[in-house]
Amino acid sequence: MSTTVSPLAPKEFIDPPAIDGVRLATGSAGIKYKGRTDVLLAAFDKGTTVAGVFTRSKCPSAPVEWCREQVKRGTAFGLVVNSGNANAFTGKNGKDQVRFTTKLAGKAIGCKPSEVFIASTGVIGEPLDAKKFDGVLEEIVARAEPGHFLEAARAIMTTDTFPKTATATAKLGKATVTICGIAKGAGMIAPDMATMLSFVFTDAPIAAKALQKLLSEGVEDTFNAVTIDGDTSTSDTLLLFATGAAAKRGAPNITKAKDPALKGFRKALMGVLANLSEQVARDGEGARKLVEITVEGAKSKQSARRIAMSIANSPLVKTAIAGEDANWGRVVMAVGKAGEPADRDKLSIWFNGIRVAHKGARDPSYDEAEVSEAMKKPEIALKVALGLGKGKDRVLTCDLTKEYVAINGDYRS
Amino acid sequence: MSTTVSPLAPKEFIDPPAIDGVRLATGSAGIKYKGRTDVLLAAFDKGTTVAGVFTRSKCPSAPVEWCREQVKRGTAFGLVVNSGNANAFTGKNGKDQVRFTTKLAGKAIGCKPSEVFIASTGVIGEPLDAKKFDGVLEEIVARAEPGHFLEAARAIMTTDTFPKTATATAKLGKATVTICGIAKGAGMIAPDMATMLSFVFTDAPIAAKALQKLLSEGVEDTFNAVTIDGDTSTSDTLLLFATGAAAKRGAPNITKAKDPALKGFRKALMGVLANLSEQVARDGEGARKLVEITVEGAKSKQSARRIAMSIANSPLVKTAIAGEDANWGRVVMAVGKAGEPADRDKLSIWFNGIRVAHKGARDPSYDEAEVSEAMKKPEIALKVALGLGKGKDRVLTCDLTKEYVAINGDYRS
Repeated sequence: MSTTVSPLAPKEFIDPPAIDGVRLATGSAGIKYKGRTDVLLAAFDKGTTVAGVFTRSKCPSAPVEWCREQVKRGTAFGLVVNSGNANAFTGKNGKDQVRFTTKLAGKAIGCKPSEVFIASTGVIGEPLDAKKFDGVLEEIVARAEPGHFLEAARAIMTTDTFPKTATATAKLGKATVTICGIAKGAGMIAPDMATMLSFVFTDAPIAAKALQKLLSEGVEDTFNAVTIDGDTSTSDTLLLFATGAAAKRGAPNITKAKDPALKGFRKALMGVLANLSEQVARDGEGARKLVEITVEGAKSKQSARRIAMSIANSPLVKTAIAGEDANWGRVVMAVGKAGEPADRDKLSIWFNGIRVAHKGARDPSYDEAEVSEAMKKPEIALKVALGLGKGKDRVLTCDLTKEYVAINGDYRS
Repeated sequence: MSTTVSPLAPKEFIDPPAIDGVRLATGSAGIKYKGRTDVLLAAFDKGTTVAGVFTRSKCPSAPVEWCREQVKRGTAFGLVVNSGNANAFTGKNGKDQVRFTTKLAGKAIGCKPSEVFIASTGVIGEPLDAKKFDGVLEEIVARAEPGHFLEAARAIMTTDTFPKTATATAKLGKATVTICGIAKGAGMIAPDMATMLSFVFTDAPIAAKALQKLLSEGVEDTFNAVTIDGDTSTSDTLLLFATGAAAKRGAPNITKAKDPALKGFRKALMGVLANLSEQVARDGEGARKLVEITVEGAKSKQSARRIAMSIANSPLVKTAIAGEDANWGRVVMAVGKAGEPADRDKLSIWFNGIRVAHKGARDPSYDEAEVSEAMKKPEIALKVALGLGKGKDRVLTCDLTKEYVAINGDYRS
């Protein structure tokens, strides 16, 4: 956990309101850190449904394998999250620790182990000693109560410099339902490093299959459109829990994702996911600039996404932005290497609204001093127009600074 | 051009022997740099064949488009290379400058413009003023003579910290033929930055089609197996010229790449390409460690290559190596994100011969102190065994240091 908060952090940290049917508490199991909380437990009322999306890594952590299996049934009674150890690449022992932890939590909450979801973040390759949870989880459950989302966000931080929360409300039928979410990480992994975890909660009554569809659609332009360094964690986990408690207040039971009643809820959910994923980009290790990359005029949205990601993951583009240099030549390079249809002589590029390149050459009208001034801003909008079709997409990233190398270089000398 | 030579540079810089049929000279056209040479001209005897491989970028530079077109005919009389300006992303004007330059060179050498090959490296997006070559090329041609390869390697440097040359001989029939090559760059691009250019010359008499096949095969495990930062230049160019002068000394005329007489030549060519491409990795911007990544036990060679490249381009793996940290957790991450078949529980990982992870978990027998000592070496061999099949591959890269960010960040403050 860093002592310096990212200059891109929100002005204030919101403590989202309680969600009916969700009780939370945090504690200290002493997994790795001293003098801070490192475990979060959530208990859900009966009837809570769950949906999840996970890392696409071919080498996922033991907790990811567990959740992927349990989420198929669509019901949840509990969630345990720890920081300090990711329980990833820990072999058979890793599975045993997951089983032991979910058994402890199930006993404390009063449910089956298979109804407990689990996520771990921190050191990878080190055995997690789940015995440290023995006694701790029981004690936490006893204290669990509605609310405490900001506290929960703090307990799951690793290299994060600030806790990430978001909330929104929506009308579902005549009732107002609430969505609250927490997140940690910056798309990274390793000893002492960050992975992306996010947990979102709502009191809307939505069947598991519909919930899964909403979540899978929702991540496409939010969490899946954010990259820090192109390195995918073995532990990335996003879980959405719906307690259904709003049904008591007249919210209709939703069984299909295409139900028109979901219009407001879908928008609110997208807002929470977009907010949380943007905060992840704002807390990219060593980041000083938030960079929004828009690609338009591509052959398709998918093609635009690939080009935007090629730009967002280019070390040369990212170091140029760190240096406040509107280096559109590197942007051309990143467009060219993406492997997607592009015609050099139709390309135009803008930095913070100023067109610097047009139709395959430097824009003769741009003013270097004006661009230099624009590049000093903490938020950089980089737009590329390909002039080939109607495909458009947008991704978020941050710059690549010496601090990134210092944080991850872990110089031992 | 840097004033500090890479700590990974060869102990001495070789000036390769002359190639019969190749005359070289360098000069100063004042494209960008002061007090150094920035243009190289080579003139070839009649009968010289040529082969080329170029960047896969969808936004290639004007010189790349020119060479790709001319190389189809397979004959060459001249080569002009300049540093200081890449003539990339320069629109219609870029094409005009290429035409003007090849016309000047053709007149000076006494050949058609279409028989002159051209390559440019340096600033991109800035118009190249080819008028600066007027008079200069004529003067250079007058001085051109056999040899001068080391001088030529110096003239084409941009951010390179040392000139790159290599040479080898081989038996072709009963004659000895010679191969000499020069290279510059580190797989990068941009204003003031590097691109990869390499020019190889031989006196062997090999028909253009066979020469092209030999070159295309040769780059696969050499230049195509090197990555600095995953960013592909718009100007990458590798040309191979064969004067055929050795025929006078009894070398047989080769018309097919599968001719058994090529056995020794093929090996020698591979050696020169491997040597030059390794020097490119050794001169990676800010590099302090040369990293050889070997992946074995993959489903196929192609799968092994993709996994090796995923590791080689991972900022987290590269920063860990900069920090002399045998962070195998990040290697697992990079294997997992490659999208290729991998089974966590069969993975083993070695750093400089020491096995640190075995069958999906930390190797219980490895000694942290011994590994720390091994990581201090300037050359790091990282081996991953997947345990799935017989596919094997090897790529070269370098570490990612704060100096890389400093060089490319171009802090304007």
